Amino acid sequence: MKYDEEKVFAYIDQHQQDYINLLGRLCQQPSLAGTHTGIDEMVKIVAEELKNRGLEVTMCPTPGNPCLIAAMPGESNKVFGFYDHYDVQPVEPLEEWESDPWVLNIREGKMYARGVSDNKGGIAGSIAAVDAWLNTHGSLPCAVKFFIEGEEEIGSPSLPYFSKHYNDAMDCDGIIFEGGERDSNSGTMLLTYGVKGILYVELSCKNSAIDAHSSLAAILENPAERLVQALSTLKDPVSGKILIDGFYDGIVPVTQQDLDILKQDDFDEEAVKQYLGVDSFLKGMSGTQLLMNYHYEPTANICGIESGYTGVGPKTVLPASAFCKMDFRLVPGQVPDHIFTLLQEHFIKHGFNDIKVEKIIVEPPYRSAPSSDFCKAVASAAERFSHKAPVIDYQTAGSCPLAYLCAERDIPAVMAGCGTQNNNIHAPNEFFAIEDFMDDIKFRCVMMHELAGRN
Amino acid sequence: MKYDEEKVFAYIDQHQQDYINLLGRLCQQPSLAGTHTGIDEMVKIVAEELKNRGLEVTMCPTPGNPCLIAAMPGESNKVFGFYDHYDVQPVEPLEEWESDPWVLNIREGKMYARGVSDNKGGIAGSIAAVDAWLNTHGSLPCAVKFFIEGEEEIGSPSLPYFSKHYNDAMDCDGIIFEGGERDSNSGTMLLTYGVKGILYVELSCKNSAIDAHSSLAAILENPAERLVQALSTLKDPVSGKILIDGFYDGIVPVTQQDLDILKQDDFDEEAVKQYLGVDSFLKGMSGTQLLMNYHYEPTANICGIESGYTGVGPKTVLPASAFCKMDFRLVPGQVPDHIFTLLQEHFIKHGFNDIKVEKIIVEPPYRSAPSSDFCKAVASAAERFSHKAPVIDYQTAGSCPLAYLCAERDIPAVMAGCGTQNNNIHAPNEFFAIEDFMDDIKFRCVMMHELAGRN
Repeated sequence: MKYDEEKVFAYIDQHQQDYINLLGRLCQQPSLAGTHTGIDEMVKIVAEELKNRGLEVTMCPTPGNPCLIAAMPGESNKVFGFYDHYDVQPVEPLEEWESDPWVLNIREGKMYARGVSDNKGGIAGSIAAVDAWLNTHGSLPCAVKFFIEGEEEIGSPSLPYFSKHYNDAMDCDGIIFEGGERDSNSGTMLLTYGVKGILYVELSCKNSAIDAHSSLAAILENPAERLVQALSTLKDPVSGKILIDGFYDGIVPVTQQDLDILKQDDFDEEAVKQYLGVDSFLKGMSGTQLLMNYHYEPTANICGIESGYTGVGPKTVLPASAFCKMDFRLVPGQVPDHIFTLLQEHFIKHGFNDIKVEKIIVEPPYRSAPSSDFCKAVASAAERFSHKAPVIDYQTAGSCPLAYLCAERDIPAVMAGCGTQNNNIHAPNEFFAIEDFMDDIKFRCVMMHELAGRN
Repeated sequence: MKYDEEKVFAYIDQHQQDYINLLGRLCQQPSLAGTHTGIDEMVKIVAEELKNRGLEVTMCPTPGNPCLIAAMPGESNKVFGFYDHYDVQPVEPLEEWESDPWVLNIREGKMYARGVSDNKGGIAGSIAAVDAWLNTHGSLPCAVKFFIEGEEEIGSPSLPYFSKHYNDAMDCDGIIFEGGERDSNSGTMLLTYGVKGILYVELSCKNSAIDAHSSLAAILENPAERLVQALSTLKDPVSGKILIDGFYDGIVPVTQQDLDILKQDDFDEEAVKQYLGVDSFLKGMSGTQLLMNYHYEPTANICGIESGYTGVGPKTVLPASAFCKMDFRLVPGQVPDHIFTLLQEHFIKHGFNDIKVEKIIVEPPYRSAPSSDFCKAVASAAERFSHKAPVIDYQTAGSCPLAYLCAERDIPAVMAGCGTQNNNIHAPNEFFAIEDFMDDIKFRCVMMHELAGRN
């Protein structure tokens, strides 16, 4: 069957309101994995929307939140995969939202809601692409498989279980994973072939049973001070180098090809600075050095820290305990579980046996082969859709649990889509422009067609 | 007029319920200086209770909360002063209170409420002592003066103003200041002749305008990390020595007399450890070393720290800002304002120009002359009341704004009373035993009589 691009694009444009309604329905259901808020309701809604389009839905129970697999055959024997997640980030600080994060609110062409971009927009976009294709062509150009999990924002702890128990079902030619971007000015598409890994930990220190009077500081250990001292040993404040012994061991060296690919990176330093409200980047970095760090350097980052009295006015207390949340973004060659062991050893080595370290998220880094059929199909679709050569990123600064899905079968995975760099994901006032959402749906159709053509 | 101790003690015992009711009335009125909660109502209640006993009350407006002076002449020309404060510490964490902190709740002979011990118990005790004396003897043995302020828990910022504008009114032979203790087992009274000073600061660091995605940690400054690094430079983690240049300069050396007085200190290490729920003190200290540190060493203490996401579950953010509350307890020879300057210089010297330092509380250290009439009268009263030689403490580990009241006129000031070391002041479930409260009233009567006798 010949692909009638004009017809499917027109259908998508005519059904814009339907697709916005679909996304609105997904966003208005809170779905927080951390507190298990609204998960069951969310799964039901997603499954229902998939079934309504004729996909065969398999509910996959896990020790945590259930995963969904949805499949539909197509004209070619190629199988196009979509990885997405139905859980979202917490909404705090709530007071900084300009509208209810659980109601899709449209202002000046942008849809605002928690998860609208990360990543319910992706789920809705993929469903809409299938919907539009079926309604204009009667059948899909290739088979599709949806892999939708519900714990991505807490580090996908059940994905290894899912991957092990539903391994056969996961066979496909490649997976599009959440969060694709294009340059909002030039329209150039960014294709990401790999991700950093992540190790997320909680550190805590406890001493007395009660918050004590601060006059006791002369004779009583302060757990906040202990935590601060322990944290300060992790990084050289001048060079920024992470001081955990063995942290950099085994890292796959950056190649000339890795450096060359940065030359076509469209990272707009001034725009990012303006968006973040900063005058300069870390250590005044810019240009190639900035891109090198962003893509290929591992990190150690304090996500949150709390101890003692933090309300209005002074209170003279010596806190009973202190805690901190940290994430480490890891690059190929680094094994998150091993880094966790090194971190524990580091604290012991530096005399901080009183710092308790708990592992919260573990996601290994992952890279796809640029020479695979799938990567080539996506690149070709991007060029045809945007009328420009896409920018290829071998490794993004963010993380996702790709390795669990792809590593065993060496399935290529690409991040490709029509979002922008500053959609306020993980922050208040997360948004997705309607225009980008509509293009995202269309681009999914083009990618499916491109893969089918490589039969 | 002869002092009939039996008669006045009997009167106090007969009116126990009246005096508990008086204390209950003071406690049920919230009075938080930090948030200016209930201050006006509190002042009115205290003034009313004083006037009802015939004292002449002078309301002293200040740039902050008003101070009260209440005076009544007596048989001798000696003037006995009481310093107290009608404001209290915040109640957070509220969930750890076993009963409403704003309602006096009696359980197993103990009265529980915020401020019941620190220091509305002191106000009620002094009023009750005057009341009992007048009702048994018709007039007081010596004149009395009450100095009651309303900003002690936020560092008495208006006390220098009060001291300057009401200087004549402050003339007296000595002042009993809040918080006197006795050993709960032996009944030995603890007399404190001096206090450490305090410098309370807020430190903050801000970088981006928004909490950013933590993948940006490779290229974006983390203000929580900056604050942690800055704080870690303040103290040697092994020796505990404070590393601010000049911090120890000018400290009045500890004398043999200072050390000798520690020999009779009744600090019960095991009891304090049990109360705090710790196995050991800082650096495993005990004995003379512990007492040396507690009484004569300055401190640097983190009261609270907060940055980024600290809720349930992981959130991968790079915080926009971080802040911290600290107090420094200072000893004679250290000038809080100077230490503040040294702290600012320290951060600049160590490359932390991005740490903003704000001064919140300044109270100089103060010591009274043990040879003064007033100190001798209090010591004699303590020995007669408890039938034991009191334990003398030249300098307590805590602070109070004594210097503002006493330094110019060199007025002796003594902390003496019948509280215990572990009344949960500044913490949840603050209490005052009824028996201790009653003894506190009686002891005040004995002290007034002792001072009058030195006419």
